[in-house]
Amino acid sequence: MSQSKGTVVLAYSGGLDTSCILVWLKEQGYDVIAYLANIGQNENFEEARKKALALGARKVYIEDVSREFVEEFIWLAVQANALYEDRYLLGTSLARPCIARKQVEIAQKEGAQFVSHGATGKGNDQVRFELTCYALCPQIKIIAPWRMPEFYNRFRGRNDLMDYAKKHGIPVPVTPKSPWSMDENLMHISYEAGILENPKNQAPPGLYTKTKDPATSPDTPDILEIEFRKGVPVKVTNTKDGATRQSSLELFVYLNEIAGKHGVGRIDIVENRFIGMKSRGIYETPAGTILYHAHLDIEAFTMDREVRKIKQGLALKFSELVYNGFWYSPECDYVRHCISKSQEMVEGKVCVSAFKGQVYILGRESPRSLYNEELVSMNVQGDYEPSDATGFININSLRLKEYHRLQSKVAAKQNE
Amino acid sequence: MSQSKGTVVLAYSGGLDTSCILVWLKEQGYDVIAYLANIGQNENFEEARKKALALGARKVYIEDVSREFVEEFIWLAVQANALYEDRYLLGTSLARPCIARKQVEIAQKEGAQFVSHGATGKGNDQVRFELTCYALCPQIKIIAPWRMPEFYNRFRGRNDLMDYAKKHGIPVPVTPKSPWSMDENLMHISYEAGILENPKNQAPPGLYTKTKDPATSPDTPDILEIEFRKGVPVKVTNTKDGATRQSSLELFVYLNEIAGKHGVGRIDIVENRFIGMKSRGIYETPAGTILYHAHLDIEAFTMDREVRKIKQGLALKFSELVYNGFWYSPECDYVRHCISKSQEMVEGKVCVSAFKGQVYILGRESPRSLYNEELVSMNVQGDYEPSDATGFININSLRLKEYHRLQSKVAAKQNE
Amino acid sequence: MSQSKGTVVLAYSGGLDTSCILVWLKEQGYDVIAYLANIGQNENFEEARKKALALGARKVYIEDVSREFVEEFIWLAVQANALYEDRYLLGTSLARPCIARKQVEIAQKEGAQFVSHGATGKGNDQVRFELTCYALCPQIKIIAPWRMPEFYNRFRGRNDLMDYAKKHGIPVPVTPKSPWSMDENLMHISYEAGILENPKNQAPPGLYTKTKDPATSPDTPDILEIEFRKGVPVKVTNTKDGATRQSSLELFVYLNEIAGKHGVGRIDIVENRFIGMKSRGIYETPAGTILYHAHLDIEAFTMDREVRKIKQGLALKFSELVYNGFWYSPECDYVRHCISKSQEMVEGKVCVSAFKGQVYILGRESPRSLYNEELVSMNVQGDYEPSDATGFININSLRLKEYHRLQSKVAAKQNE
Amino acid sequence: MSQSKGTVVLAYSGGLDTSCILVWLKEQGYDVIAYLANIGQNENFEEARKKALALGARKVYIEDVSREFVEEFIWLAVQANALYEDRYLLGTSLARPCIARKQVEIAQKEGAQFVSHGATGKGNDQVRFELTCYALCPQIKIIAPWRMPEFYNRFRGRNDLMDYAKKHGIPVPVTPKSPWSMDENLMHISYEAGILENPKNQAPPGLYTKTKDPATSPDTPDILEIEFRKGVPVKVTNTKDGATRQSSLELFVYLNEIAGKHGVGRIDIVENRFIGMKSRGIYETPAGTILYHAHLDIEAFTMDREVRKIKQGLALKFSELVYNGFWYSPECDYVRHCISKSQEMVEGKVCVSAFKGQVYILGRESPRSLYNEELVSMNVQGDYEPSDATGFININSLRLKEYHRLQSKVAAKQNE
Repeated sequence: MSQSKGTVVLAYSGGLDTSCILVWLKEQGYDVIAYLANIGQNENFEEARKKALALGARKVYIEDVSREFVEEFIWLAVQANALYEDRYLLGTSLARPCIARKQVEIAQKEGAQFVSHGATGKGNDQVRFELTCYALCPQIKIIAPWRMPEFYNRFRGRNDLMDYAKKHGIPVPVTPKSPWSMDENLMHISYEAGILENPKNQAPPGLYTKTKDPATSPDTPDILEIEFRKGVPVKVTNTKDGATRQSSLELFVYLNEIAGKHGVGRIDIVENRFIGMKSRGIYETPAGTILYHAHLDIEAFTMDREVRKIKQGLALKFSELVYNGFWYSPECDYVRHCISKSQEMVEGKVCVSAFKGQVYILGRESPRSLYNEELVSMNVQGDYEPSDATGFININSLRLKEYHRLQSKVAAKQNE
Repeated sequence: MSQSKGTVVLAYSGGLDTSCILVWLKEQGYDVIAYLANIGQNENFEEARKKALALGARKVYIEDVSREFVEEFIWLAVQANALYEDRYLLGTSLARPCIARKQVEIAQKEGAQFVSHGATGKGNDQVRFELTCYALCPQIKIIAPWRMPEFYNRFRGRNDLMDYAKKHGIPVPVTPKSPWSMDENLMHISYEAGILENPKNQAPPGLYTKTKDPATSPDTPDILEIEFRKGVPVKVTNTKDGATRQSSLELFVYLNEIAGKHGVGRIDIVENRFIGMKSRGIYETPAGTILYHAHLDIEAFTMDREVRKIKQGLALKFSELVYNGFWYSPECDYVRHCISKSQEMVEGKVCVSAFKGQVYILGRESPRSLYNEELVSMNVQGDYEPSDATGFININSLRLKEYHRLQSKVAAKQNE
Repeated sequence: MSQSKGTVVLAYSGGLDTSCILVWLKEQGYDVIAYLANIGQNENFEEARKKALALGARKVYIEDVSREFVEEFIWLAVQANALYEDRYLLGTSLARPCIARKQVEIAQKEGAQFVSHGATGKGNDQVRFELTCYALCPQIKIIAPWRMPEFYNRFRGRNDLMDYAKKHGIPVPVTPKSPWSMDENLMHISYEAGILENPKNQAPPGLYTKTKDPATSPDTPDILEIEFRKGVPVKVTNTKDGATRQSSLELFVYLNEIAGKHGVGRIDIVENRFIGMKSRGIYETPAGTILYHAHLDIEAFTMDREVRKIKQGLALKFSELVYNGFWYSPECDYVRHCISKSQEMVEGKVCVSAFKGQVYILGRESPRSLYNEELVSMNVQGDYEPSDATGFININSLRLKEYHRLQSKVAAKQNE
Repeated sequence: MSQSKGTVVLAYSGGLDTSCILVWLKEQGYDVIAYLANIGQNENFEEARKKALALGARKVYIEDVSREFVEEFIWLAVQANALYEDRYLLGTSLARPCIARKQVEIAQKEGAQFVSHGATGKGNDQVRFELTCYALCPQIKIIAPWRMPEFYNRFRGRNDLMDYAKKHGIPVPVTPKSPWSMDENLMHISYEAGILENPKNQAPPGLYTKTKDPATSPDTPDILEIEFRKGVPVKVTNTKDGATRQSSLELFVYLNEIAGKHGVGRIDIVENRFIGMKSRGIYETPAGTILYHAHLDIEAFTMDREVRKIKQGLALKFSELVYNGFWYSPECDYVRHCISKSQEMVEGKVCVSAFKGQVYILGRESPRSLYNEELVSMNVQGDYEPSDATGFININSLRLKEYHRLQSKVAAKQNE
């Protein structure tokens, strides 16, 4: 009997792909430990455990990382108002380092030299997984079957996987595969590939799973009061029924429920992958969408204008880093520190309505607002000296006048 | 009889404030030319003309600047995806330089040394008006009554204006003033001040005028195909009834109609004024909201990722400049040039749905897209070599590994 | 006898201008407290004290702020590599908030409602002084005589000041005024105005006071080893004679001496004032120039590339804020925090040579460097896998190839 | 006799490495065309031609690209004030796309499917060469022997190359190799590797080749008047002897001569390679250093402050792109366009002195300057209204006062 090549911790999903990879890895001579992160997706975890063991996994880890996903990843994105290319709330990007971090921990605990995953060779997720692994454990070795010719040449399509599954006693899915691929976690679900690869094709009815169709969503809004401290939501109150949620995970789950019920959080975009190609994705991010709008509002209310501008630049960088897989990097550490620092005074309540796919800000209040009702009032002059504005405008116009003077001189010369 | 102090071109709105200013300016010894820009607001222009003449204006100019507003101002904001502080589509900010430019033209034509306006001393509009005037005509003199003690000490509230009006035969509004102030143009309407000054107060029902309440808006969407060339919309087709619009002004008016009908474009925000205070505004921007989303989509589809990032930075600057009143400035000239340059290949059709206050992107197509369906496909390998991604990831991880190495070394030293 | 209008703390320099202002303020009915900061300039402080008292100052404060200037202001600029418009090391800009902060402290201690200064109405210093005062003590009132018509109309030139001085027993300078104005502190000296206002005029021989002419400076360099911790110099050793300096102030003074001896730190620039005009200045910043180069080097050696890029952007902002007078502002607080955070690992020794007006970096070492001699070596392959670079390049080329593909398609179409 | 695998255009330097590669490529079955760019380096081109032919090159191209290097590459860097990581003038980075462009042209003309180069697998140059090739000719195939195991495992050090050379009749260098590697072109020379890999080691005496040692350089400066149009030098006049140069190449060569004579342009830095490692380099860039300073000065003199700030951001990006090898990329095209646009008014004369390793700006003049001597003058009030500055400062302080108010409120609350 041949010697093991070593132990691999495989990020296992329970699906056809990673089941085949599990068996294939064993075939290649590895001991396989299956690892399945519970990051809030809709999944039968116990069935997956049994399946992995049945397929020959030496051990199965099913790890609930939902709460740390919310507190250590999503909350930072909320503080940042993180948005990739002006639209994408980074639902998948944020989950990857959270999942991979635990995978590395397991590998270290188990003394495994290898980790493996089922991400494709054209996508972002391979990068996010692997950069996390290398950053946290530089000596780790990564097996990415979809980038290995011996694997991808053998499995050229779904049919090859099906054949292999049948041959190796891997349970084959009974329901037909949807004509697109999905990836889900607590924050969002993505739909890509298949018929969606044509960017002109509209999302077919029935695609969405996390949000109701706004056409059939309730005819009355839910109105929520969201309370923030240090830029992070700490309490949600539904003004309709008085329901409240305070703990991070419960609060986030509740917002998903309300937003989902009202069809909030759907987008259809073409984005630029780190790898250099454009791809089309349809996403649902219910709670994330509400929090994006609510945080934007309370931040604008409590943060100085110029601090906000600087923080906005850092957040653009943050979003790009997270998207590209650099959560664990010196620069992302640094940017996170700076963004968190900016949130110290971001405190207060925002009142929002969720209705028919839309989030409306209705009002806000804060003990730490820089809004000064008396100062801004049209009826009260207060300390404000209107004539100061004259000087302000005049000095600001100085440069413009000088520019005009020069333009005229140059124009005059050209007409000579 | 005393000599005239000279001629003033007054930006006249027909309302109580500027009517009193008109009379007051005459009282101060100026000849007054009233100028009223038709920039798409809902207004009885002929009545305003008569009123101005009746109040003693030497001449009245009513100038339709709607088309130039769309073509020379709004289109640039669309190309830029211009957004101030992540939310405000700049509806008022864009109108000011358009209005003031014409005012300067009239002053130059009429040989007037003065221009005047009724903007308050705490707001942005005074800055936008005056910087435009100074930039285009450095020697112009500006009379801003609301910043002159002799004026604002005399007119301390609406009652003082009413009294003055009665005394000087200025027609007094018969309907009671709404408990907030409004400013309207073709692109947007703003509601500010009064009861809205408390940022916690929700917008009262009945406030909105340009958009239907999403609660009562139609139960079926309108689906529009918007065609862009060089980043500017050149054709809109309603797929429901086949209606099309191609000329800029008509196209924009049509989008206002459809978006308004579906309740699209409402926001309630606190923003930072140039003058240094925070203010609260409720805005409606129907067509602008649709175009923002549609342009964002076609741009992402046709523009290189890295060009997009650079252009995004320039657009942030552009938005700030426009908000602060620097449309006519060397830096805004420069930024506009650069942004327009980036739009040369932004061409194609976006399909959008307007429904219940929301805009949904449904699909897009373009002869100049950088999207490559074959390259990105999960089913086709194409020219793409998956193993290249391994090298790409490894090289990207180099820096992260080095950082880890250093951190470990430092940590080890500290534990010694 | 008339009542005092209150107490003014006047930033007093001992020169003709502020002596006249002192007397003039008394004439206007104020009690005057003279405040003279010792910030390292060449000055006879005791004589100035006597003069102020003789002119009627109720009290004189001579405050040595040199050490806090170095530790709380200059060190931050060193950490930032602060440079305004690519050239100016901000010697004056950094001194102003340090001087004004103490002035506000004195005003608060003395219960004075007013502060006053002799800065002109066209310059940056008025802004820097006053923004500092307002930020630290919003209710303070500022008397800026050079912006008050009753003052500047009375004193239209130096002769008017001389006449006034003679009339009021103010000692008149016996040496003729140099044909330019100077401002000096520990970090730098500036020469402006007068014959230097023509930007074509070369600095006359004999203008410089802090640095030797490189033409006559020593023919052998001084070679210094500068040690940094957290981005701040903590020790300087002269390899020639073994002299060392460790305490911040002594270290800085020593670097001034060595740099000055070798003619290091002269520049002649045209810069953009906050007020909107361009001005010409000739500056000497001996120690600051050495530290700029040395810090740049040790930072590049110890800081991650991407962190550096982000920090560079923040430092650009920092420099602009400091130049414009916003040292005490929420945004500058924030930026300083972020920059300091970036310096935690900036530690090590840089070897520099000062010679004939130039600073040369000769070498560097650090226990916290990210430089990895083995990794970069051309002779050792180490862990590095050259073939990874192929994948890295190929993936990076993907976008470029796609762009080429599109350009060709478009070109082909245009040629049809 | 076996069939050719095809034709390779090899970037040939005449040295040991590329000579071995030439023979090795033939050994592998390729037809080899040698290409040697004359980009201003010190080289015996005819000898190299003979050598290549003797080694079996089917054809030799020796192409003089000096003038296009100056006009199409260096001039853009001058306009940009391009500087990588605050110090490196990009002398090598700019040369690579110029060299590779011609290589691709030759490949296309000769119908060669392959290009090859001798750049190492750890450096930047491989990236710069290959990205240029792929961007200009996506279907080209690149042979990079130093990244191919069959090559680098065979040639593990210089001795292996020497042995191979002797065996294959390749002339072996008679002079011992210098203990570092060099790369030269018209703009600069770099010294790296070998004994310089230890960043603490000082550059040994005798290393420099393009500049005189400042210790022995002339004791009197050369004073040059450099005239710019559209941000590009168009004329240089030496005020000492009246010598002038106007044509781009001649002008640049002349500046190299003068700067070199005075020891101008030496730096010793640690920089961050694109590949993710830090490396140490010693560089000489004589003419480039003078032009950097002169252009900075004329630009500041003629460009609006705010345009300058935006352009500065673009130039930072430009420098990074050029360093990383993305000269031919959509984003670099775009940035170059924007930077050139900013230079339209950058016109005038700068007077500079080169002396003992240093460049001093002495004065400047321009028909298009925004400098207004009268406006800035301390003696002339002009149109400037000093009281405007009061309003300007007050309005700017508003935000700071509000922040203070909030801080006090929060502090008060915490002390309750």
